[in-house]
Amino acid sequence: MQIHNVNTRGFASDNYSGVHPEILQAIVDANEGHQSAYGSDAYTERLQEVVREHFGPRAEAFPVFNGTGANVIALQSTLPRWGAVIAASTAHIHVDEAGAPERVGGMKLLVVDTPDGKLTPELVDREAWGWGDEHRAQPLTVSITQSTELGTLYTPDEIRALADHAHERGMLLHLDGARLPNAAVALGVPFAEFTTDAGVDILSLGGTKNGAMGAEAVVVLSDRVPDGMKYLRKLNMQLASKMRFISAQLIALYGTDLWQRNATHSNAMAARLRAALADVPGVEFTQEPRANGVFAVLPEGVADRVREHFFFYDWDEAIREVRWMCSFDTTEEDIDSFAKLVRDAATA
Amino acid sequence: MQIHNVNTRGFASDNYSGVHPEILQAIVDANEGHQSAYGSDAYTERLQEVVREHFGPRAEAFPVFNGTGANVIALQSTLPRWGAVIAASTAHIHVDEAGAPERVGGMKLLVVDTPDGKLTPELVDREAWGWGDEHRAQPLTVSITQSTELGTLYTPDEIRALADHAHERGMLLHLDGARLPNAAVALGVPFAEFTTDAGVDILSLGGTKNGAMGAEAVVVLSDRVPDGMKYLRKLNMQLASKMRFISAQLIALYGTDLWQRNATHSNAMAARLRAALADVPGVEFTQEPRANGVFAVLPEGVADRVREHFFFYDWDEAIREVRWMCSFDTTEEDIDSFAKLVRDAATA
Amino acid sequence: MQIHNVNTRGFASDNYSGVHPEILQAIVDANEGHQSAYGSDAYTERLQEVVREHFGPRAEAFPVFNGTGANVIALQSTLPRWGAVIAASTAHIHVDEAGAPERVGGMKLLVVDTPDGKLTPELVDREAWGWGDEHRAQPLTVSITQSTELGTLYTPDEIRALADHAHERGMLLHLDGARLPNAAVALGVPFAEFTTDAGVDILSLGGTKNGAMGAEAVVVLSDRVPDGMKYLRKLNMQLASKMRFISAQLIALYGTDLWQRNATHSNAMAARLRAALADVPGVEFTQEPRANGVFAVLPEGVADRVREHFFFYDWDEAIREVRWMCSFDTTEEDIDSFAKLVRDAATA
Amino acid sequence: MQIHNVNTRGFASDNYSGVHPEILQAIVDANEGHQSAYGSDAYTERLQEVVREHFGPRAEAFPVFNGTGANVIALQSTLPRWGAVIAASTAHIHVDEAGAPERVGGMKLLVVDTPDGKLTPELVDREAWGWGDEHRAQPLTVSITQSTELGTLYTPDEIRALADHAHERGMLLHLDGARLPNAAVALGVPFAEFTTDAGVDILSLGGTKNGAMGAEAVVVLSDRVPDGMKYLRKLNMQLASKMRFISAQLIALYGTDLWQRNATHSNAMAARLRAALADVPGVEFTQEPRANGVFAVLPEGVADRVREHFFFYDWDEAIREVRWMCSFDTTEEDIDSFAKLVRDAATA
Repeated sequence: MQIHNVNTRGFASDNYSGVHPEILQAIVDANEGHQSAYGSDAYTERLQEVVREHFGPRAEAFPVFNGTGANVIALQSTLPRWGAVIAASTAHIHVDEAGAPERVGGMKLLVVDTPDGKLTPELVDREAWGWGDEHRAQPLTVSITQSTELGTLYTPDEIRALADHAHERGMLLHLDGARLPNAAVALGVPFAEFTTDAGVDILSLGGTKNGAMGAEAVVVLSDRVPDGMKYLRKLNMQLASKMRFISAQLIALYGTDLWQRNATHSNAMAARLRAALADVPGVEFTQEPRANGVFAVLPEGVADRVREHFFFYDWDEAIREVRWMCSFDTTEEDIDSFAKLVRDAATA
Repeated sequence: MQIHNVNTRGFASDNYSGVHPEILQAIVDANEGHQSAYGSDAYTERLQEVVREHFGPRAEAFPVFNGTGANVIALQSTLPRWGAVIAASTAHIHVDEAGAPERVGGMKLLVVDTPDGKLTPELVDREAWGWGDEHRAQPLTVSITQSTELGTLYTPDEIRALADHAHERGMLLHLDGARLPNAAVALGVPFAEFTTDAGVDILSLGGTKNGAMGAEAVVVLSDRVPDGMKYLRKLNMQLASKMRFISAQLIALYGTDLWQRNATHSNAMAARLRAALADVPGVEFTQEPRANGVFAVLPEGVADRVREHFFFYDWDEAIREVRWMCSFDTTEEDIDSFAKLVRDAATA
Repeated sequence: MQIHNVNTRGFASDNYSGVHPEILQAIVDANEGHQSAYGSDAYTERLQEVVREHFGPRAEAFPVFNGTGANVIALQSTLPRWGAVIAASTAHIHVDEAGAPERVGGMKLLVVDTPDGKLTPELVDREAWGWGDEHRAQPLTVSITQSTELGTLYTPDEIRALADHAHERGMLLHLDGARLPNAAVALGVPFAEFTTDAGVDILSLGGTKNGAMGAEAVVVLSDRVPDGMKYLRKLNMQLASKMRFISAQLIALYGTDLWQRNATHSNAMAARLRAALADVPGVEFTQEPRANGVFAVLPEGVADRVREHFFFYDWDEAIREVRWMCSFDTTEEDIDSFAKLVRDAATA
Repeated sequence: MQIHNVNTRGFASDNYSGVHPEILQAIVDANEGHQSAYGSDAYTERLQEVVREHFGPRAEAFPVFNGTGANVIALQSTLPRWGAVIAASTAHIHVDEAGAPERVGGMKLLVVDTPDGKLTPELVDREAWGWGDEHRAQPLTVSITQSTELGTLYTPDEIRALADHAHERGMLLHLDGARLPNAAVALGVPFAEFTTDAGVDILSLGGTKNGAMGAEAVVVLSDRVPDGMKYLRKLNMQLASKMRFISAQLIALYGTDLWQRNATHSNAMAARLRAALADVPGVEFTQEPRANGVFAVLPEGVADRVREHFFFYDWDEAIREVRWMCSFDTTEEDIDSFAKLVRDAATA
């Protein structure tokens, strides 16, 4: 029974879109018959091969429900109970996860302001101190996001520098890869080059924002990460009984080139939107869009006028900055009609 | 891509089976176009009507990922930080949730042994004491399961007696309804008669064990439950971004008679299995199957011989008790061939 | 300024009494001048020698504020986040700590009923199972109390058997020694014989119930306990700034024979009370008092009549069982006049 | 037995000093006889009168062990599970409590940089937003410190403005008063004028840093704070059994003018130190000392040379800022000889 208007479109978030047809088909294919619950199924087994192809022979995937779950258990697995995480103040774990890392994960976040959502070794050092002092939550993990919440990108070298910096100080490096495909496509390099090979220890691998229905995974990349993920996933309520249907989504995405096609498309749509508005007076871009998000400052009143037709979020209301996200199903027509709306509103 | 053997069948658990075709179709129908994430979608809105039809005008549904998540946030919502939950020692929250209620929910469980998985006012009173004494985690919620983990059932009157008992002592009543349809069908009464109308305050409503892919909900039934569920769901990492696909599953199940058809079928299959083995020497039934589970004590060696063909779980290894679960997709042929295997093994 | 009635006496608890004069003097002696805070002081350093003398060269003491704090951080230090503790259902951690082990410690308690407050390998095995199954909080530590909450005692051999049993299964053994001196005196053996040498891995060492003002310590006894206690103590809010005054109390108690004198006395007072009431009709002793507690079942109405003069606690109201605790400052006159009161009330 | 050098002095912290003789005497006076444990004693009862005299008729004191404990349970009592606290980035709860507010308290801290350790309504507003959005930990309490960690002071009007600002937005105001007496003396006003009467809802009242052995209290000031403190104190392991000895310390301090004498003295010593170094070339004061702390930037090498004689802490190593704390037992001779050391080292 279809009770929604399938013609509604927008730029609010890449999770406003639905499921890519190939992923839906993978779900259908995984149905029928019985499969062991809680991960002892053929799909979760196959997924291990898929992640090893992308991330190297050490990689092990633990499918979970959502990105907050992936981040919290990934970070928790890297930390003793007295551990803290250094992150950018714009990080999803700090801004969008309702305190789950602190309350459920039991960790303190030590956040640092950045110009572009990216940490550097120097920025890390603002909070990387005090080891051995029991009065200070011990900074033992650095968490970065690729592509960042601001649509910016780390180069593989930048990530390697952060990993080396962290490891030299006894810290691990976590990467929130909710939009990992967008980064890989924009950089034009394989995943391993800016994750495993660059020294990332543990990864939150996203699916939902790239066309899955609801599928993420923690991927352990290095032996520096202590054992125990299977227990952490369960006790943190992220263990799916019919896991085959989550794994099947991730296989459909990462076991084929679908991740690449979807990300290439959504990145291109963001670039098209950026280009279409390049010359609109009063519209300024706060970050050059490298991935699938566009961040723009609009003249007063423009956002509200456009939102009469398309919903999207304010990013920083104080400076009239908005965020437009493109998705695997954003069409050129969506972009062109939306750009026209913005242009008209800005020049009205 | 189908990589599993669709002919594998078994009696291990009702979550070894896949997704009912009508639910799969509902997922497909919910696709296409954009919908607001995190619950502001047409399906989650429609789900509210569905639960109100079943549970009365006060009912409000909060879709979540899994049963552990539903139980933990439902119970947490009923308790101050110093609260404890009285439950049967066989309860899923005590036996199968890896300490999530304690560690994530921050609550103490006060468990009571029961002959049949069912609490009574007298059994509740073994732990219902010590209010006002800060040395004792305060027992402020009673949690029961319907149908129980042993396949037994509470009558509506028994639940009402527990609710009255709890309320008189300032406690709330939670019901873990992971298999609520099996209970309703076995009792032959509407849901409300043994939930809302019997005084249950909050409900974990199951979908996954009755043919859904992965869909549960917390349903708030009474004004005794404090506000705040939307925050608890998010901070406990149970908030789905593309929630429409969870809500669509629950609508397919509870907005039609599918819940009833599936539960009627799986209950009937359990009864058929019970009947088929009634006269097998050495096979004894520890509980009369009222729902979709059969609990039997087998002669030595029988379980292992049968498991060469069909996997199922030991329930109490010490007394050679096993559990056989029937599902929406269990067939009469499954039962008959399985019963023959057991009979042959027992009489070998 | 003295604002209390110094003539009030009772048998309610060994923490109703005050501070032994020698301990008070030790506090006075530790005053004057400056000492590094948070444990880098001469007294805490000296305390290490004291515990090594009693518990062997590996022993390391971490002074804390109270018994609940000692137990929670001791147990937490032995467990990964997915760990559970097996304990007697009468254990202080289960009955008297308001859920702190669960909520603050993040651990699940798996409790077992016992006839006398004492675990055995067989009783441990009721909950010692399910390792490797992520659905079950992993039982990785056994916690016992010496002397028990029921005033009973483990022999050194019984503790060794529990330690061997635990270690063979990959579990550690914690001992709650809130009343360790009473046990040592009753057994007539040094501490090490039923702790370190018997295989106990970590100890909560009590002071407050044996004449201190407020002083307990976690004592790490074996290398099986992972590092990190200093962080756990701080983050669990059990780190005293002016720690010298806690350590000085423990030195006064355990660095001399004061622990022995106090415990010998309070045990003797309990025995005297038991003997004085041996022939009172209707008064039955549920446990033979080995330490400083007496547990008796009284005829109806007797407890209330006696409580008009001396306050004490019900232990199991259902069977009219009461608990009488003797302390370092209980006098023979206290015992004799109290025994007379009970006798008179029982024979009235 | 005295095993420390009573002639050691320093400026490291106000908790390096010992116990004021009048407080020690109060402890001695509270000894002898039996008193009910856990707060039902004559001293804890009398303490209620003392706090009502200072903070008004609504005030209720809950003695605890230490400042971290006081802060965590005070803040926790003001918040639902989804609450967050807005604080200065220099706040003790953020910098010195090892993540206890997050891990044990289960709250998220939203910290704001300040020039002087003081929040303002404008600074609060940097994080006071997002109510109703479940993705954001809900900012429901503002926490300030008086005197601040930087030795600065809020005027009563500044606190009133913050309280009004908080209350208008549905937030409560917590005040960390570890050094409340130093603030009251410096401002020359009674406690109530900048706490209860200024709109503070809940207070952490310090004793240890003003001459107590180890005594702090949570003081509930307004009806906006939900009930439940007695449970929170116990479950967070901050409930003392022999509480009379903590309450007696607080009575000795706050039931007389000792708080005032001690704070007047330590403030004066800080001013004396500041004055003595006013003209030393290269020594700069980062904050004007209003309370008992002096914050100075020293020429390179000076700190190390002085530390050969007196230990003290770096405050901000990057800019060679140090902190010197004066205490109730700091003497004029201490100041003068220390000032000479600094002067000599700076002009060497």
